[in-house]
Amino acid sequence: MQVVEVGVEGPDGETYRREVVRHPGAVVVVPATDSGTFLLVQQYRAAVGAELLEVPAGKRDVTGEPPEVTAARELAEEIGKKAAHLELLARFYNSPGFCDEMAHLYLASGLSDVPLDRHGVEEQHMSVVEVPFGDVDAMIEKGDIVDAKSIIGLTLALKRLQ
Amino acid sequence: MQVVEVGVEGPDGETYRREVVRHPGAVVVVPATDSGTFLLVQQYRAAVGAELLEVPAGKRDVTGEPPEVTAARELAEEIGKKAAHLELLARFYNSPGFCDEMAHLYLASGLSDVPLDRHGVEEQHMSVVEVPFGDVDAMIEKGDIVDAKSIIGLTLALKRLQ
Repeated sequence: MQVVEVGVEGPDGETYRREVVRHPGAVVVVPATDSGTFLLVQQYRAAVGAELLEVPAGKRDVTGEPPEVTAARELAEEIGKKAAHLELLARFYNSPGFCDEMAHLYLASGLSDVPLDRHGVEEQHMSVVEVPFGDVDAMIEKGDIVDAKSIIGLTLALKRLQ
Repeated sequence: MQVVEVGVEGPDGETYRREVVRHPGAVVVVPATDSGTFLLVQQYRAAVGAELLEVPAGKRDVTGEPPEVTAARELAEEIGKKAAHLELLARFYNSPGFCDEMAHLYLASGLSDVPLDRHGVEEQHMSVVEVPFGDVDAMIEKGDIVDAKSIIGLTLALKRLQ
């Protein structure tokens, strides 16, 4: 994570300074099974001090790697699956007020098993949670899913699958 | 914005260090008019170097101020409206992988005019854009709306209004 100052030119010609976070971007993957469920991961998030239920995701930290390759890699690493179909649903900025992180969001379907390949402290203590399509809206409403990228991913995936 | 190091205790008892961004939290407000439109704001975002179309929002930067009060203030400041009804739709973390920012998301309805009260360089150069409820899904799909909080806000607001 890198915090830098950037100049913002006002329409009056003056320049203002702003502190922003530089981020390599991320991939977000919504894995949908043929039996009508999503495969989520439960993991501890040090920044918020809590266990959160999220869709698989990861930083684009390999220079030059196309986002769909990173997405496939995260899917194998975090839940041990390979997808026959990986469809780009959207691209979005998580927090454009102070960070340039852009996420590429994919729907993954036609899933088959591959070896799990977790590394890093957080990944090693993830667990996979299977959630029926029909439970998602209520889980968001009740606050069981409070991660922005997961709310967007699951909501757009449901629309696509309907 | 403050970057701090926090300790993460692994289940093996060891402690790992992580860099995280401390953030006071935010309010996000989706203003829905009686004529079936949302009122969005277009503004320059220095962090991403582009003009984005977003719902009104702001940092919870007044200590002790309840989020619904901040929400009402941002609504007046950014689009010059007061809401008869302000309903909490959800709370979510924008980027829990590295930041503790939590957003309180409100649906604002029963809108009436109050004086605009923009301050700060970015707010002063905002413009208001009125978007019919029925256009939102296509705008997200086409990439006209790429801001995470706005995608969540508009999607959940549409569900509530249906």
